[in-house]
Amino acid sequence: MKINNIKNVKKEKVLDEGVKDVEKQIPIGIAEGSNRIIMRLFTVKPGGHSPLHTHDYEHLVKVESGKGIVVFSGGEREINVGDFVYVEPNEIHQFKNPFDEELKFICVIPKR
Amino acid sequence: MKINNIKNVKKEKVLDEGVKDVEKQIPIGIAEGSNRIIMRLFTVKPGGHSPLHTHDYEHLVKVESGKGIVVFSGGEREINVGDFVYVEPNEIHQFKNPFDEELKFICVIPKR
Repeated sequence: MKINNIKNVKKEKVLDEGVKDVEKQIPIGIAEGSNRIIMRLFTVKPGGHSPLHTHDYEHLVKVESGKGIVVFSGGEREINVGDFVYVEPNEIHQFKNPFDEELKFICVIPKR
Repeated sequence: MKINNIKNVKKEKVLDEGVKDVEKQIPIGIAEGSNRIIMRLFTVKPGGHSPLHTHDYEHLVKVESGKGIVVFSGGEREINVGDFVYVEPNEIHQFKNPFDEELKFICVIPKR
């Protein structure tokens, strides 16, 4: 058993290509002993976005605060608190924050 | 891509042995196409609890609202909003709500 409060979890700027103004925290990951599933918390500042990309693993996303836009092959959709987003493996996707408030979301992935 | 708002996700009473006053929603699961990871939301009413049990898969837990007590082999600990709990496979655990307010938490598991 490992209990982490988010206030004590290191926040790191995401420096990957195509990313703007996104920070990542990993409240449950390999450091906590989780060998199959990783739980991350992302903060997307106003004007920020994740890359428009695909990869061979899924995302299980839950909006924590603020709102955002999710881009997918079929278009775009606004996401708000209370929304859960499942992104399939190999599905193109991007999370954008064109709004005035920070967007925070949980994103769960399998360990790669 | 599948987007579900929690307001539209069916809430079911958990009837398993050792459970009292717990409801479950599955905002991302097999119905959404997620074949490896399942995201559930549990509501534990005041006086309610999950079973004190073990199983061979892990839990990745995030407290959503209210507060609770997590029981583990080493004792008990209060959990609050902002806390993330990793329960190892085969680790004994229980979630209890002896408080006046509903406890809500996300619990992510691998598909069994």
